[in-house]
Amino acid sequence: MKKIKLKIPATVANMVCGFDILGMAIHEPYDEMEITLLETPEIIIKHKDSFKLPEEPSKNVAGIVLLKIQEHLNLTQGFEVVIHKHIKPGSGLGSSAASAAGAALGANILLENIFSKEEMIHFAMFGEELASGVRHADNIAPCIYGGITLVKSTDPIDIIPLNTPDLFVAAVHPQVEVKTSDSRQILKKNISLKSAIEQWGNIAGLVAGIQKNDFSLIGRSLNDVIIEPIRSILIPKFDEIKMKSLQLGALGGGISGSGPSIFMLAEKRETAEKIATQMKSVYDEISIESFVYVSKINPIGIEIVEESE
Amino acid sequence: MKKIKLKIPATVANMVCGFDILGMAIHEPYDEMEITLLETPEIIIKHKDSFKLPEEPSKNVAGIVLLKIQEHLNLTQGFEVVIHKHIKPGSGLGSSAASAAGAALGANILLENIFSKEEMIHFAMFGEELASGVRHADNIAPCIYGGITLVKSTDPIDIIPLNTPDLFVAAVHPQVEVKTSDSRQILKKNISLKSAIEQWGNIAGLVAGIQKNDFSLIGRSLNDVIIEPIRSILIPKFDEIKMKSLQLGALGGGISGSGPSIFMLAEKRETAEKIATQMKSVYDEISIESFVYVSKINPIGIEIVEESE
Repeated sequence: MKKIKLKIPATVANMVCGFDILGMAIHEPYDEMEITLLETPEIIIKHKDSFKLPEEPSKNVAGIVLLKIQEHLNLTQGFEVVIHKHIKPGSGLGSSAASAAGAALGANILLENIFSKEEMIHFAMFGEELASGVRHADNIAPCIYGGITLVKSTDPIDIIPLNTPDLFVAAVHPQVEVKTSDSRQILKKNISLKSAIEQWGNIAGLVAGIQKNDFSLIGRSLNDVIIEPIRSILIPKFDEIKMKSLQLGALGGGISGSGPSIFMLAEKRETAEKIATQMKSVYDEISIESFVYVSKINPIGIEIVEESE
Repeated sequence: MKKIKLKIPATVANMVCGFDILGMAIHEPYDEMEITLLETPEIIIKHKDSFKLPEEPSKNVAGIVLLKIQEHLNLTQGFEVVIHKHIKPGSGLGSSAASAAGAALGANILLENIFSKEEMIHFAMFGEELASGVRHADNIAPCIYGGITLVKSTDPIDIIPLNTPDLFVAAVHPQVEVKTSDSRQILKKNISLKSAIEQWGNIAGLVAGIQKNDFSLIGRSLNDVIIEPIRSILIPKFDEIKMKSLQLGALGGGISGSGPSIFMLAEKRETAEKIATQMKSVYDEISIESFVYVSKINPIGIEIVEESE
């Protein structure tokens, strides 16, 4: 039986000013997923973690992706999936995207690469839709392409892989609950043209900085005048963590996805580690448990750890 | 007496989705300007063209820039400026920016390069303010830097020079009047977050396309869901010209600045020339006089044609 073992990275969507369009893969944390191609058409999902996610295929993020692939291809084969999640659901670090993208990319390899990257994104978005109600690709795309991706459009799917600057990411996940649906609802439906113009100056600057490897420009562009002022209210100590991180030498950063995780970019590992330590200590002081992660921007995305016949 | 002769290019601001932040220099049309450093503190402006622009320094776009420079440096010297404009005022092709940027860059050379590019932009913006009431740099910046520029901020001045793709520009200036102030007033003060997100996907795509020399991506990104649908109403035959240009092979294009000029980008000179011919014939049919220009994106900006002691 063909079998594949994947390492699926966490992802940081939005990247401050790129709400709904930008995302990047990091190295830590990551999920592990083992997928076996079955000769019978069942889809079996097993979670080896303690997050109590539903294992019924149609209610499981990886399961729904595989069901859609099976249906689309009229497959007589099935899949058995064993998932060991380390990316905590609800962290804002692309936990559902990891399951969805892992299932799509894993199935594609087991089926001998019949899909393009765009098709994998198409199927993986069913997983995101199940998780959050929205067919979005800002976490899936960096999982599948690696590095930093621009989701120019999801209908049709138009993903632009950007350059991967040699930068470190410090991320903290405080153990508070922020539902993606809640953090979407509090956003205003209308914004001023003036703030939109400021935002698109920042986005243009961020993309230019990424492409030019201009770290100062990346830092100057990591400003969000529209989403962050609203969403950050849901995250305890956000302003303090951001301010202290900048003081420690972060280029910039903000909310990861819809939160509550916060990420910061830094030029050196040492700086990123100091930032992570400070992030944790801010939450320790107010007795909120938190997890911190330091790694480089991940240029590869999902990695194949093992492949066997 | 030190004297300098400049060739100052037309510029296309906004570049469709980059309202208020992007601009590019082209080769045609261009203004000619001769500036002489005087030993006495007068500022003398002479126009050799027929546009009847005011020649009183404080009311002239080049004049006000020189006055501000003189004041800032407590200069005992003055300037005599002879301007031969070919970029028609009110065309949307950066006519006022050409006068303002030419004056700032010319004075800087005559004063032995005492200013940085940012400082030249600072002074040139007084000219734009006089012309349109708004201190903006989207036309001045490509004049001074050449190529395509991103105005990330005007306060502080933060200009990002982008890559110059090897593309041709076809532009048409129909002889109808659209005042910059009018075309600004009809814009909505608020826009939907949904359309803003679409717009910043396009801007991010355009900047990525420019940096990657990805012409297809540039073409796919030249969409403006916010400004163009409103402003294009002021430009006769806009939709027809755009549609026909795309049919002839234009990558994309739209309103130049605040109009009424329209520009289109194309990979080949031949295509750009066909587009220009078609643009002209559309206006000929409805008896609107028009001028068309075909040239490459201009990587240099203002050129020094002659310099003498």
